[in-house]
Amino acid sequence: MKQAGSSTPAIAALHPIGPASLIALDWGTTSLRAYLFDANGAVLATRALTAGIMNLPRSADEGGFDAAFDDACGAWLDNAPAIPVIAAGMVGSAQGWVEAPYVEAPASADTLVADIVPVKTARGSTVHIVPGVLQRGELPNVMRGEETQIFGALGDAGASPTQSADAGKRALIGLPGTHAKWAVVQAGRIERFHTFMTGEVFAALREHTILGRTMVTPDRPDTEAFLRGVKIARDKGKAGVLATVFSTRTLSLTQQLSREEQPDYLSGLLIGHEMAGLEAVLNQQQDSLAAQSLRLIGNEALCERYRLALAQFGCTQAELVKHVTERGLWRVAAQAGLVNPAPHAARVS
Amino acid sequence: MKQAGSSTPAIAALHPIGPASLIALDWGTTSLRAYLFDANGAVLATRALTAGIMNLPRSADEGGFDAAFDDACGAWLDNAPAIPVIAAGMVGSAQGWVEAPYVEAPASADTLVADIVPVKTARGSTVHIVPGVLQRGELPNVMRGEETQIFGALGDAGASPTQSADAGKRALIGLPGTHAKWAVVQAGRIERFHTFMTGEVFAALREHTILGRTMVTPDRPDTEAFLRGVKIARDKGKAGVLATVFSTRTLSLTQQLSREEQPDYLSGLLIGHEMAGLEAVLNQQQDSLAAQSLRLIGNEALCERYRLALAQFGCTQAELVKHVTERGLWRVAAQAGLVNPAPHAARVS
Repeated sequence: MKQAGSSTPAIAALHPIGPASLIALDWGTTSLRAYLFDANGAVLATRALTAGIMNLPRSADEGGFDAAFDDACGAWLDNAPAIPVIAAGMVGSAQGWVEAPYVEAPASADTLVADIVPVKTARGSTVHIVPGVLQRGELPNVMRGEETQIFGALGDAGASPTQSADAGKRALIGLPGTHAKWAVVQAGRIERFHTFMTGEVFAALREHTILGRTMVTPDRPDTEAFLRGVKIARDKGKAGVLATVFSTRTLSLTQQLSREEQPDYLSGLLIGHEMAGLEAVLNQQQDSLAAQSLRLIGNEALCERYRLALAQFGCTQAELVKHVTERGLWRVAAQAGLVNPAPHAARVS
Repeated sequence: MKQAGSSTPAIAALHPIGPASLIALDWGTTSLRAYLFDANGAVLATRALTAGIMNLPRSADEGGFDAAFDDACGAWLDNAPAIPVIAAGMVGSAQGWVEAPYVEAPASADTLVADIVPVKTARGSTVHIVPGVLQRGELPNVMRGEETQIFGALGDAGASPTQSADAGKRALIGLPGTHAKWAVVQAGRIERFHTFMTGEVFAALREHTILGRTMVTPDRPDTEAFLRGVKIARDKGKAGVLATVFSTRTLSLTQQLSREEQPDYLSGLLIGHEMAGLEAVLNQQQDSLAAQSLRLIGNEALCERYRLALAQFGCTQAELVKHVTERGLWRVAAQAGLVNPAPHAARVS
């Protein structure tokens, strides 16, 4: 079989390579990533495309979803037409291929599976679209795609005594990014979660306000400037982020912050306010960041920034969990009966 | 004398109209407003131009400031070449005509006057540029132009027993806008102040994030949606503005907020967070918004929104003060000896 894209040896090496058994799609707004699995849940091949749902090769009305789907995994399906296909992310939104309505929190993998929505492709395959999760309330919250990653982060239950404790223990999982999510997971269920628009607000402030005008991107990230921002948010942030961000400008005007320091300082301020907000929410529940042993999912460099910021709030136990997208897709597919993992592959189911 | 632009009858009517005695310029980033005063401080004429310092008719190197100056008040000076000229605002910044370095808070009108910087114009007049105010610290703050408006709001000392109490009483003055300012004034001095980038952040979120995509501007401001946002910020805002703003989207996704309600809801959220931040700062000083009898300066419709928001925080005594820019410029000019108000005009000096 022709293998397009790069394999993920770190996972594949754990298992004997077998024939293809599942195609899984992580299909977001601006990107589409496809995974080909063997029967043991090892990744045989991956393909990364820019054909997110807002960036299809042609319009949805003109078959844009089918075209992107064929680009992503047509060659794989030519070789193995009968293998099942699962997809998660914005592909199931109202602007997606077909809407997979949100399931309500608390939500387990079973809850997701029960509401999978199938869509028939032009070439005859069925794509099983995983729904997102909605938390109702005065401040509702939604996620699409992250729920699958979260189950991927929990999916190693059974692999080690520590991780099998997932079954009952409460865990806090952070997903830094454009819209950062923080989810409280217990007994294999997403109990509740929060969204912070940290990444998107940073971009908007930098590109479209006066704060960006004097900024110069440094050659390498400036950890000191970043931590300075985090500490200001933690110790002097009472007036809120609408007030503290102006210091990016005033510290510059008073020659206390160079142009090259400004981007990381502003990033530290915003992530620091995110931490302070999360801490305030935890405090309301007689909990704290310092008491957490939490997991981070996402871009490694960004997760590292979050680890630094978390440490400033007393949380020194933040573990970066990798390959959660493919693990989560595999796990939901197994739970849905789309694949029947061999007994020795239980560690990834 | 030819009078360009519109007069301000509300002020002029208080005093007999006399010959011109002062030209005053409120010269900001995007606009330039010129006032012609008689010897009693009554406004004889005004002119409004778009020639802010970032919007000059030609570049600064090519005499852009002189050109804008001539456009604004050349005709007045042709008729009365000897009258003094005063200017406040960004015209005194590092990007302005000539830099008038910040004076440090606490700052009185005398402090400002002592550091006025003169600039000679091409036509031979001298423009007296009022400095801005800097508050040093870990979170420095700066203002340019607002200091003059604040002294304008305090400038009626002597006019009535209530207002003469300004001399000793502590007052909180709010200047809503792109960069909202809140200044604590006591004994005629700006003691300290805060800046909230509320207006600019609102514009950036609306124009350059996902929150704006579903927004439709309503025919008239939606007070109910605005107050809903204020109350969410007040009662459910613990996680901070980075978290609450996402509800603009999720309330829309769950059909609880229409497209037309979204702009005012988001505005309410941001202004509500500004109030909550201000309240937190006041609380640190054993003070509160509810205990304030404060003044608002600025756009009337925006000040009305702030009054509504302040009321949600228990502050029902918020007085809108008008004509503070021209009154402040007149007052600083008088303090500087540029004009010698007649005794009966003491009320505006």
